[in-house]
Amino acid sequence: MTTASTDPINIGLVGLGTVGAGTVNVLRRNQVEISRRAGREIRIRSAAVRDLKVPRDCVVDDLTLTSNPFDVTDDPEISLVVELVGGCHIAKEVVLRSLQQGKHVVTANKALIALHGNDIFQAAHERGLMVAFEAAVAGGISIIKVIREGLSGNRIDRIVGIINGTSNYILTLMLEEQYSFESALQEAQRKGFAETDPSFDVDGIDAGHKLAILAAIGFGIPLQFDRVHVEGISNVTLDDIQYAAELGYRIKHLGIAQRTPAGAELRTHACLTPVNALLANVSGEMNAILIEGDAVGPTLHYGAGAGAEPTASSVVADIVDVVRALTTDPGNRVPHLAFQPSALTELPLVPILEVDSANYLRLQVIDQPGVLADITRILGEMEISIEAIVQKGASQDGEAVPVIITTHRTLEQQIVDASMRIEALETVVAPITRIRIYPDGA
Amino acid sequence: MTTASTDPINIGLVGLGTVGAGTVNVLRRNQVEISRRAGREIRIRSAAVRDLKVPRDCVVDDLTLTSNPFDVTDDPEISLVVELVGGCHIAKEVVLRSLQQGKHVVTANKALIALHGNDIFQAAHERGLMVAFEAAVAGGISIIKVIREGLSGNRIDRIVGIINGTSNYILTLMLEEQYSFESALQEAQRKGFAETDPSFDVDGIDAGHKLAILAAIGFGIPLQFDRVHVEGISNVTLDDIQYAAELGYRIKHLGIAQRTPAGAELRTHACLTPVNALLANVSGEMNAILIEGDAVGPTLHYGAGAGAEPTASSVVADIVDVVRALTTDPGNRVPHLAFQPSALTELPLVPILEVDSANYLRLQVIDQPGVLADITRILGEMEISIEAIVQKGASQDGEAVPVIITTHRTLEQQIVDASMRIEALETVVAPITRIRIYPDGA
Repeated sequence: MTTASTDPINIGLVGLGTVGAGTVNVLRRNQVEISRRAGREIRIRSAAVRDLKVPRDCVVDDLTLTSNPFDVTDDPEISLVVELVGGCHIAKEVVLRSLQQGKHVVTANKALIALHGNDIFQAAHERGLMVAFEAAVAGGISIIKVIREGLSGNRIDRIVGIINGTSNYILTLMLEEQYSFESALQEAQRKGFAETDPSFDVDGIDAGHKLAILAAIGFGIPLQFDRVHVEGISNVTLDDIQYAAELGYRIKHLGIAQRTPAGAELRTHACLTPVNALLANVSGEMNAILIEGDAVGPTLHYGAGAGAEPTASSVVADIVDVVRALTTDPGNRVPHLAFQPSALTELPLVPILEVDSANYLRLQVIDQPGVLADITRILGEMEISIEAIVQKGASQDGEAVPVIITTHRTLEQQIVDASMRIEALETVVAPITRIRIYPDGA
Repeated sequence: MTTASTDPINIGLVGLGTVGAGTVNVLRRNQVEISRRAGREIRIRSAAVRDLKVPRDCVVDDLTLTSNPFDVTDDPEISLVVELVGGCHIAKEVVLRSLQQGKHVVTANKALIALHGNDIFQAAHERGLMVAFEAAVAGGISIIKVIREGLSGNRIDRIVGIINGTSNYILTLMLEEQYSFESALQEAQRKGFAETDPSFDVDGIDAGHKLAILAAIGFGIPLQFDRVHVEGISNVTLDDIQYAAELGYRIKHLGIAQRTPAGAELRTHACLTPVNALLANVSGEMNAILIEGDAVGPTLHYGAGAGAEPTASSVVADIVDVVRALTTDPGNRVPHLAFQPSALTELPLVPILEVDSANYLRLQVIDQPGVLADITRILGEMEISIEAIVQKGASQDGEAVPVIITTHRTLEQQIVDASMRIEALETVVAPITRIRIYPDGA
């Protein structure tokens, strides 16, 4: 058992745009939780930016800013370089230079990994260094980790994913708002989901980069973007979407990698997807990936595929992975309960009676004048707000009928007390069935 | 950089029932892929069973079978013990004994972890050993890994899951087949989804164990099952399900752990869930877990929550995790592309023209006698089978109308050739729009 270092670890950023600023903000905001998980403090020492005068979406007071990326890659105090410049030219130089300098690398750069990953991993392997790239595919979804580690017992048979949020956002607007392709694209650009030159997204190239990465880790093959069949969505019209809907389908842009007796299929294109398939119900800019393994069967992983903080979520997870590997002895690389044993806290627990929920109530009542008035009066006195009240079925004289009530959110204690008072009414002839309604916003 | 051992690693199993046999079968069937991922061969050296005479659902010819679990835990050749007996009594003894003997442990035992995990992890931590338990929660879904590692940059705000497959199967039968609770339970028992004593499942205890584990790793709190509010589904009637449906909800049994200003809520109970929520669309014995983090937003993870091979998928992933940690230097614990760099293979890739798909075709045709006959004749000659053909809208004399055709699966080459022949018809006045239909079974 080696002794674990608990000194703070210094990292450097190259690139401080949307994802870079998101990474700084997440590391800063969740500093305590992250240190509890990683076992040591993570300090951002410096960041390289193209233009020192551009304002940033994060606080930079305590960072050294430089316009020279090699100030970061060559700093002997830095153990890990986070590459967030995008593109392939400078990014490749930054990553290879960092590795030459003996530093681990975290990157969100899908084009770089898809096109130059084989070289980069070779350089890292020769030096015993890590290059982590969870954020390169499907933003905040931990799909690299799930395939590389979570499904490592399986032969992966198929990977099917909505892996370009811009295309999915456009197709969703066309379906739900009857926008034309052109109007939907303009709206995506207005919202910041699509670049001024949208061809990487709508022509399927971005999805192709991601698919090349997924196929490599799923099937154990080299990265080979140039052999992915790439189509986008610019041929899909509003009519197609409506006719597909009449036939029971939604049109989605998918990346598909699957084994067949003849080999592996790698392709990205628009696809009619049955409305009851889980992937058909992934809307807007969200991503989702279906993985089929021979042991596990189908699994699906859903979340935000882009955006500052969802992408930063995966960048930070990669940083923590590297830090954990550098910190703990191999026999204990991830704390059993995610946080270090000495860092468990006694967060207070809420008793069930202090939980608040909306509720569904089913009552059996004798249908006679005044009964609903009695019930609503009790609920009103208990300050429980009614959302809907429906009497089911017509009653024979003096026979009991069901009454369904849904309430707005209320304390458990109040609804329990109210239920007891209602059950005490002579007209209520059976115990109330109460079922809580799904929490808002989930 | 330490030198990595590549000797085979010996493991021992305690318990060879459904999941044990599944684990043997998966390790055997995927032996080559798993070794490529783990970097060394994984050998099952022995298995302890209660009754040596009971037939097993796997080949056991090359295993040493014993009726004494301590033959496995105390074998100096074994580095890792897989505990699959279930329950808490013998299981706890086996796990603690294995740790005393300096062996890593993999377990699928949710009750053991929920009730005795704090002691077990303490014992493991003192000795620098791993206890892996991915299979204890949600079967084949890598939810422990996702929360512990994939979302380590987040403050986890909410975990909401369908984490008891038996309850979800019963509720699905009630909704879709109008079974009463009792009939649905009997059907679940007939299919092997529910135990003869179903109370662990339908009373919410099993879900409560899993929720205690999820809450601990999500929030960084100790395991505390005794403080989870546990309700099952035995109070849900067919009427409730139907009324809920009229209101736009499906009833699901959920485990909920969420932060509130007052602390953490931990509860399992039936819940009306809006039909358009992803969790409402998780049917049958499947599981799904929604995780909300402050950076990533909502993410959802879906898959089989039980069964021999889905559970074995997570057991084997845990074994591989341990083996990787023992094998590689810490700077390189997971191969970049999931498989060892020297083990990448050149799986042949299928050209797009050799892919087969069903297709959606949209044509613009002049509405005159014989036009559909011409089109269907060409498709027939190319051996493309038509699933549906629909003419949209009425035509003015000589005006073009859209015709929609869906085909059964066909080679890309055939549909491309057929499309060219159809486009050459004088009555077809515009290029055909073709969109592939979602692959079967996904």
